[in-house]
Amino acid sequence: MATPNRSRRGRRPGTSDTREAIAEAARRCFAELGYDRASIRVVAEQAGVDPALVMHFFGSKQKLFVSVMSLPFEPEDVLPALVAGRSSEAGLRLARFIVGVLEQPQPRMVITGMVRAAAAEPEVADLVRDAVSSRMVGAIATGLAVADAPLRASLVGSQIIGVVMARYVIRVEPLASLAPDALVEALTPNLQRYLTGPLPLVPGGERARGAGAR
Amino acid sequence: MATPNRSRRGRRPGTSDTREAIAEAARRCFAELGYDRASIRVVAEQAGVDPALVMHFFGSKQKLFVSVMSLPFEPEDVLPALVAGRSSEAGLRLARFIVGVLEQPQPRMVITGMVRAAAAEPEVADLVRDAVSSRMVGAIATGLAVADAPLRASLVGSQIIGVVMARYVIRVEPLASLAPDALVEALTPNLQRYLTGPLPLVPGGERARGAGAR
Repeated sequence: MATPNRSRRGRRPGTSDTREAIAEAARRCFAELGYDRASIRVVAEQAGVDPALVMHFFGSKQKLFVSVMSLPFEPEDVLPALVAGRSSEAGLRLARFIVGVLEQPQPRMVITGMVRAAAAEPEVADLVRDAVSSRMVGAIATGLAVADAPLRASLVGSQIIGVVMARYVIRVEPLASLAPDALVEALTPNLQRYLTGPLPLVPGGERARGAGAR
Repeated sequence: MATPNRSRRGRRPGTSDTREAIAEAARRCFAELGYDRASIRVVAEQAGVDPALVMHFFGSKQKLFVSVMSLPFEPEDVLPALVAGRSSEAGLRLARFIVGVLEQPQPRMVITGMVRAAAAEPEVADLVRDAVSSRMVGAIATGLAVADAPLRASLVGSQIIGVVMARYVIRVEPLASLAPDALVEALTPNLQRYLTGPLPLVPGGERARGAGAR
């Protein structure tokens, strides 16, 4: 784990400072340690506060997770416009946006933490599924506005989750140290094909058992 | 978690039966509970044995993981042939093989357990990175036999890891309930492009910072 922010230790900051220090420490712990190891005790230690104060502000570990791990952008505001419009550039726009988000430390921490938590904790997997499925996949599907949009959006989701896992969590080389602009170009045609290319088997969803489920 | 195999409780089986019952319970626990929650105690309970016996056979949780979670195929034997040969069908062959493996309960358990563990435990992430990177990515790269093969293979890896996470762990719909043959067709062109399509930015790896690292 990265160096803890020891400068906060021993300070007596105001309430909102303290809450934000805990939130910041929690995001870092969830991203770097994973959900199960990011205990209230460890988060408190990283924030330089008493564990009871973490419970006072957030109530439980799961509530702490939900409070601090909000998506760094509003999917409904951003994604439909990215994938609509000149469809031949939708893959490029989406790849640029996603890589841009993931290359900023704070958003990367949140997204990596969410993906790691989804692998650890069933209730948190439900939460992440709702964030990914209902919100991100839903927003992409809204922008696409075609019959098989939910399948396309969930395939896009699989590639993005895979990049988060392979590049930032497992760190498979050379993908892990690929320059961001090279990553954008590596992903663009594949995202483009999921967004607008032929998916001949599931024109109306008939061979996709769950395609009409949401 | 699925129904435990209660028929094993109370039996007094021979040593190799007992060891295999523990291995089987451990695989199921790692896949369904994730690494952190799959404690020695829970594995022992699922196998109907004393926790001390699990320790006797396997030594530690990490050693138990390493022993029971071996890949359900030998990457070096299978993957080079899949991606070599008539390169225009490499994506289809690889998609069929991977989906075929993931749709069998036992191999899916092992692979899902490895991906989940990689998200939880740093040392196990190292182990999974070695399994994914050195073995699977290496075997695909061997079959491709081109300069940027490691990058291509790691991009393939990102898509496969993403499918494991999105379909089997987070269960993003409609991908989670897509029929296997539809999944093969959904993945084929994207795997094909990573294997043989143009990746214009990294012809010899010069813009891929880590491309020559292994």
